[in-house]
Amino acid sequence: MKIKQPEQITPQSKNFSRWYTDVVLKAQLADYAPVRGCMVIRPYGYALWERYQKILDGMIKKAGVPNAYFPLFIPWSFLQKEKEHVENFSPQTAVVTHGGGKKLKEPLIVRPTSETIMYYMYSRWISSWRDLPLKINQWANVVRWEMRTSLFLRTTEFLWQEGHTAHATLEEAEKEARRALRMYQKFYEKYLALYPILGVKSNQEKFAGAEKTYTVEIMMKDGKSLQAATSHNLGQNFAKSFNITFQDKDKKTKYVWQTSWGLSTRAIGGLIMGHGDDHGLVLPPRVAPIQAVIIPIWGKEDKKTKAYLEQVKKAAGNVRLEVDLRQEVSPGWKFNEWEVKGVPIRIEIGPREQQEKTVTLVRRDQLGEKITVSLEKLKDKLSSLLEEIQESLYQKHKDFTEKNSLFVDSWQEFKKAIANKKFVYAYWCGSPQCEEKIKEETKATTRCLPLNATTKKGKCVFCGKPASQRWLFARSY
Amino acid sequence: MKIKQPEQITPQSKNFSRWYTDVVLKAQLADYAPVRGCMVIRPYGYALWERYQKILDGMIKKAGVPNAYFPLFIPWSFLQKEKEHVENFSPQTAVVTHGGGKKLKEPLIVRPTSETIMYYMYSRWISSWRDLPLKINQWANVVRWEMRTSLFLRTTEFLWQEGHTAHATLEEAEKEARRALRMYQKFYEKYLALYPILGVKSNQEKFAGAEKTYTVEIMMKDGKSLQAATSHNLGQNFAKSFNITFQDKDKKTKYVWQTSWGLSTRAIGGLIMGHGDDHGLVLPPRVAPIQAVIIPIWGKEDKKTKAYLEQVKKAAGNVRLEVDLRQEVSPGWKFNEWEVKGVPIRIEIGPREQQEKTVTLVRRDQLGEKITVSLEKLKDKLSSLLEEIQESLYQKHKDFTEKNSLFVDSWQEFKKAIANKKFVYAYWCGSPQCEEKIKEETKATTRCLPLNATTKKGKCVFCGKPASQRWLFARSY
Repeated sequence: MKIKQPEQITPQSKNFSRWYTDVVLKAQLADYAPVRGCMVIRPYGYALWERYQKILDGMIKKAGVPNAYFPLFIPWSFLQKEKEHVENFSPQTAVVTHGGGKKLKEPLIVRPTSETIMYYMYSRWISSWRDLPLKINQWANVVRWEMRTSLFLRTTEFLWQEGHTAHATLEEAEKEARRALRMYQKFYEKYLALYPILGVKSNQEKFAGAEKTYTVEIMMKDGKSLQAATSHNLGQNFAKSFNITFQDKDKKTKYVWQTSWGLSTRAIGGLIMGHGDDHGLVLPPRVAPIQAVIIPIWGKEDKKTKAYLEQVKKAAGNVRLEVDLRQEVSPGWKFNEWEVKGVPIRIEIGPREQQEKTVTLVRRDQLGEKITVSLEKLKDKLSSLLEEIQESLYQKHKDFTEKNSLFVDSWQEFKKAIANKKFVYAYWCGSPQCEEKIKEETKATTRCLPLNATTKKGKCVFCGKPASQRWLFARSY
Repeated sequence: MKIKQPEQITPQSKNFSRWYTDVVLKAQLADYAPVRGCMVIRPYGYALWERYQKILDGMIKKAGVPNAYFPLFIPWSFLQKEKEHVENFSPQTAVVTHGGGKKLKEPLIVRPTSETIMYYMYSRWISSWRDLPLKINQWANVVRWEMRTSLFLRTTEFLWQEGHTAHATLEEAEKEARRALRMYQKFYEKYLALYPILGVKSNQEKFAGAEKTYTVEIMMKDGKSLQAATSHNLGQNFAKSFNITFQDKDKKTKYVWQTSWGLSTRAIGGLIMGHGDDHGLVLPPRVAPIQAVIIPIWGKEDKKTKAYLEQVKKAAGNVRLEVDLRQEVSPGWKFNEWEVKGVPIRIEIGPREQQEKTVTLVRRDQLGEKITVSLEKLKDKLSSLLEEIQESLYQKHKDFTEKNSLFVDSWQEFKKAIANKKFVYAYWCGSPQCEEKIKEETKATTRCLPLNATTKKGKCVFCGKPASQRWLFARSY
């Protein structure tokens, strides 16, 4: 063989962030682009994103939110209209100053998020209660000039969906913000097989311009938390900045109540770091672009082996199937490569299998074990195995998260738990000063006040003042 | 009724371009954005684009071309590498000069097309004949700073797909360029019900950086031609600029041969101007987001009418169906609105229909006629009617194009035919001077040398010198 084995992936235990980069590059999910902080999403990575899109887009449409498309460019003045929004996003923007060979009168911002450009249009489209609720989703690229970047997790340009709604009442807006949160929860649990913690962000951590930010936090294999999707109740902040009013049934003119919610290509990073192991990616079957790969193990192809391969393909049923017929690499090399790519099931067929009319299956998440199946039973076996893998990955991630979560009541314990890469649930008095100092000393931030948090008496883990609820603290991406 | 009837659409005969804008705005396909030359694609327009995407994406994938995603920003220096490319695109670019609050060392171009950024990556990914062919498609937004803009037809930012392939031989590249052209032909004929003229662009009109540009030209209802998709054989121009080489089977290092091909949101403009009439849009059933709309015609809803509506919905089968239950507008108002939106079939149900267990159907393309159908036959009737409409729209457009196409041999005839809004097939000697003068005097350009053009002896319609083939001339968008 002239073609060399894929280079080793750095073990997670040795250097988790190098492991991550190795996997992204070697699985050909993405590559570095020749533009600062940008990446190229390669076909295999994009196929994964297309699976995400198909599933999430279906959920969004089912909730009565159609897609539309708003401009990439936002007039500089628009960004200035909402105070918190401009403070947060101004330093992160890419600015177009020249167009068509001339200097522009007013610079244009490349959208970091689309509230301002969309709500300008909303103010033109909404005039009566009959126009409400107005719900629109957009799949788009956005740009934020980040200082430190990382493939998928934090790139200058990234892809996402952003939903934006306007309602007649606060109650409706709150309901919609929670609906979106539950939608993301379902997406992560049912499809990405990841166990999400849902909660509300602190004032410090909430979206710039929001009244309340709901978040989905997920534990990565290094114990850090990934903010994996957010949903904002925007109150009337933008409505007032962009003058979005309607005449209500009572003939009075009122401001609308709004929400926005989004999930980005960052969710691919979350999948990698939530399930991956030292062999590479581990993909949950429901989002895997390829669910099973057939690798023939015979020296030469002849009529008989070809015919058997066709039989196997037919017997496999409706799974997303790939057949690796490359001659220039060995079966062992192929095993390795498809493991790096995280394909849930490998189907080996060799002379013995051909003779016995069977195939040998190997699960990506249980590499040591081989399963022999007859052709007649292959379809059912694949189908049940894929379900089993999906369920097992979820359970494993849930167990992992729970095993690494602690209730902590003293500052010593807190520091130790964070150093030990735990999710820490601790009382916090709510003061931004404590929040800031905790961050300084431990690098841990308030991830959220979990939705299911109960109200009890307690003392702030940092200052000892009275506190009523335990917040989730962790280091994060 | 407090809500007023939709404003009148300007008749085509009175002012075609105003008719066009009226239809785009009133059908709520798009709206003007507060950014120069940009538009907002509204949900109904975007649903149409999603239909396009679904169909075309399926064709692209079936041809073995997966999707990927490359950066929005292109380093200034990249654009300079291919001589023709930079000359053409430089004056049209939007330039990012500041990022993250600082002036950039090298300005970034917002992609006007992605050859340069993609081929930089190709040069890194390709090293052996085993890596070829490399085929990638991208769905993306691009920006060209156009002087005169028009909704969908020519906007500063637009959406498109761009396919980019690299091959070991010229023959393969040529085959791929033609495959893409045939794919677009099929897309227009079978789905958009438009009759395309396929051909090759003149040197003057070809893509900047291509060896050869294939084009799809379509006659709009005002006799102008729309360049509706293009496919380029790029030869080795970019391969040499970006040093994309591979080691061939014969161990020699060679440059790859490339193609690129694209179709944009402009194709929505083509659909509007190819089929629309004075009542608004006319959508071919295969791309219509809504294929049939039920409009109940009774004063009040009661249990019985509701039950009948449910029966009708069930009886309609699998068509993409909408039910218009609004109380605040009259049935006549609704008829008008859905006609503007071009929905292929209207289903009226009133007291008579309810009693007789029938519905009344009205075709958007034959507004005067009413068809009564029993509930049992509704599903089959809708299905056959949709096919009939699809076929009939195509035939109508083909007839229209042919009726308005002329073979012309004298300069007087030529001028007259162009003034009369015809597609003109005329001998041209091939000189850029004649091409330019014809354009100056008549505003008509060489649209293409049709693929099916036969070689005969003739004389250039402008200068009288020998010419061997008839080119298609027309005014264009």
